[in-house]
Amino acid sequence: MNHTTTGTIGTADFAAPIDDRFFEDYVPGSVYEYGYVTTDADDMMEFAHRYDPQPFHTDAETARHTFFGGLIASGWQTSAMMMRLYADHYLTRVASLGSPGLDKLRWPAPVRPGDTLRIRTTVEAARRSKSKPDRGIVTTRAEMLNQDDVVVLDMSAVNLILTRDGGHGAGTAG
Amino acid sequence: MNHTTTGTIGTADFAAPIDDRFFEDYVPGSVYEYGYVTTDADDMMEFAHRYDPQPFHTDAETARHTFFGGLIASGWQTSAMMMRLYADHYLTRVASLGSPGLDKLRWPAPVRPGDTLRIRTTVEAARRSKSKPDRGIVTTRAEMLNQDDVVVLDMSAVNLILTRDGGHGAGTAG
Repeated sequence: MNHTTTGTIGTADFAAPIDDRFFEDYVPGSVYEYGYVTTDADDMMEFAHRYDPQPFHTDAETARHTFFGGLIASGWQTSAMMMRLYADHYLTRVASLGSPGLDKLRWPAPVRPGDTLRIRTTVEAARRSKSKPDRGIVTTRAEMLNQDDVVVLDMSAVNLILTRDGGHGAGTAG
Repeated sequence: MNHTTTGTIGTADFAAPIDDRFFEDYVPGSVYEYGYVTTDADDMMEFAHRYDPQPFHTDAETARHTFFGGLIASGWQTSAMMMRLYADHYLTRVASLGSPGLDKLRWPAPVRPGDTLRIRTTVEAARRSKSKPDRGIVTTRAEMLNQDDVVVLDMSAVNLILTRDGGHGAGTAG
């Protein structure tokens, strides 16, 4: 994985910079794109040997004889590459309280060596916690797209994020 | 990540070995456990620097001052470690057609340095494809547990797997 360029793509981005970004800044309906990360075969095979040793992930030659017709990235590595763009550009650096998990994760098309990937984030919902009003729950649809605009990952992420007021002195992750 | 021992835990396992395992061998209600993988701080920080650079993942000292009280693994690394056990022991090596994704992924408790993790797989459903009867869709609940029997990952996985008959000569992933 390499960052070829890294930053906002297109015209829209948060008004609040990532180190002063709180729950209130995640406005439902907002759509932002960030990129890029690029992939290569050695990197895919290294990840796969360690974490996902299926033949279409670990060996380019063997992979040619599978139904994928060549090496593809582990879906878990694709997810991790998505996370890098999400953490670098979208997720607040000062008010994140972590994630309990997610409700949907799809890998609708394979990631192949040489692909250039970007992320598209859509704020789906943001609601303040009733039991802990210093924080809110933000639901984000995160899609990864390749250079042909094919969606290779589509997920619905959940993040707990401190509110701007409630966050003061609360001991954030930053 | 290290494999301290690797194999079946407990008494139950598939009758069919992993290199001769097909759709029919995934019987709903079956529960198997496999392990172990162990974690260490350097490994967690290395993964996090590359893929998930949040302070409670990347730096042990900074992590002490967050609400987690110390370093925790990226949920994506926990997922990848789960995949290693899943691929090594549970998922057929000769009949897997990949995964379209999953419907639920939870990280209910943090993974910390020194944890020893195992996986518990429960075959939730197995149905033959109507449109492509040479394969079936297997849904598996996969849980990761630590040395204190705390669940640190809970997911519902979907795998496409060739049937024993339909698989003959179909060009498998193996």
